[in-house]
Amino acid sequence: MAKIRIGQGIDFHQLTEGRDFWLGGVLVPHHKGALGHSDADVLLHAICDAMLGALSLGDIGVHFPDTDNTYKNIDSKILLARCAELIAEKGYQVVNIDSTLCLQAPKIKPYVPQMREAIAGILHLTVDDVSIKATTTEKLGFVGREEGVVALASVLLEAGV
Amino acid sequence: MAKIRIGQGIDFHQLTEGRDFWLGGVLVPHHKGALGHSDADVLLHAICDAMLGALSLGDIGVHFPDTDNTYKNIDSKILLARCAELIAEKGYQVVNIDSTLCLQAPKIKPYVPQMREAIAGILHLTVDDVSIKATTTEKLGFVGREEGVVALASVLLEAGV
Amino acid sequence: MAKIRIGQGIDFHQLTEGRDFWLGGVLVPHHKGALGHSDADVLLHAICDAMLGALSLGDIGVHFPDTDNTYKNIDSKILLARCAELIAEKGYQVVNIDSTLCLQAPKIKPYVPQMREAIAGILHLTVDDVSIKATTTEKLGFVGREEGVVALASVLLEAGV
Repeated sequence: MAKIRIGQGIDFHQLTEGRDFWLGGVLVPHHKGALGHSDADVLLHAICDAMLGALSLGDIGVHFPDTDNTYKNIDSKILLARCAELIAEKGYQVVNIDSTLCLQAPKIKPYVPQMREAIAGILHLTVDDVSIKATTTEKLGFVGREEGVVALASVLLEAGV
Repeated sequence: MAKIRIGQGIDFHQLTEGRDFWLGGVLVPHHKGALGHSDADVLLHAICDAMLGALSLGDIGVHFPDTDNTYKNIDSKILLARCAELIAEKGYQVVNIDSTLCLQAPKIKPYVPQMREAIAGILHLTVDDVSIKATTTEKLGFVGREEGVVALASVLLEAGV
Repeated sequence: MAKIRIGQGIDFHQLTEGRDFWLGGVLVPHHKGALGHSDADVLLHAICDAMLGALSLGDIGVHFPDTDNTYKNIDSKILLARCAELIAEKGYQVVNIDSTLCLQAPKIKPYVPQMREAIAGILHLTVDDVSIKATTTEKLGFVGREEGVVALASVLLEAGV
């Protein structure tokens, strides 16, 4: 396989009252949280998918099926760590990650440094190699109505040096 | 032009009763199929667009206009093969492709190996260089209501060696 | 930081009567335009975000907050030029940009050459390194109802040679 590889991920979760809102490995104070089998961390899921996809290792639904009770309410940081192991086993490491959270509320800017540190720590990267951006959808669609949240991620991998 | 180049694609199709459902070059059994001028293979279209875009060659709408009867109900594998020729003429080849299908139903996991083989065969790649992931939108939006399907693709190209 | 880096951007704007429609630095004749604090050029914003994201420099909301009157109705070409400076200060340059505009109407094909020239001029690239693709959403969702417009961009950066 080529020395340099590209991956992309996208993930969706519903927002609902009475759930914790985990984003990028950080608990974000909000009156709603993301619904899912795991902790429903949409950003970590998109990053996991991008890492797996870069090496054609399947997707998080294949590796961590939501029909498996092992993953019930699991901390997605554990899933991210597992994806890091999977790419390391193939001899690859992350060059950099860029991502965007699409959500109408709350403002996540105050939490971004902590998210970047959490992700960089798990992947043995510096925070300079982990980018998290955010945008509203300008009130459009299910994100704009605060019914859901979407995350997109792109990653570049290289064969270990 | 640079030795290494990036491309991205996104495509959308409506789902409707009474159409075949072509995805990644494979006929997927389902009570609905994607509506379009060609066979409406949303995944192949996103990959075509990513390949064309990496070399600034326009998009599939420019190359294969839906006002041209040549492309009426055409097998999108023919369009993908044409895109492969276009990038080869420029001296480039695909390093790897990563993609995600966003659809609520059916589960496409059983068809992914066949899709990867179809795409790899057309592009003269190994299946390890063609990644297809899938996600629902957790019932959100037009994908969640099974009114439509979306595909995203990222590609990395390199100048032929 | 690594010699080669990846970035991605996505942006959303509402469409409304009585606004100019700026896309890719070009004024596109249409009965609606994009609503925003700046000139609301969704394509330039997605490209700015991808450039910033590739070097983990934050996002356009961080650099050009919509609460700052400096950026009221500002020409987004000025923001793009600023992003080019920011990556140059880090010793990087754009290898290539690929992007997709998702909008139902109007057809933007006639304006694409002018958009590519505008962007390439600001970034000191050739037009061959700036790709702009377009797709409708096949009448699906808020884009299909002509209530909004979405742009996605991917960029590859390299350390200056």
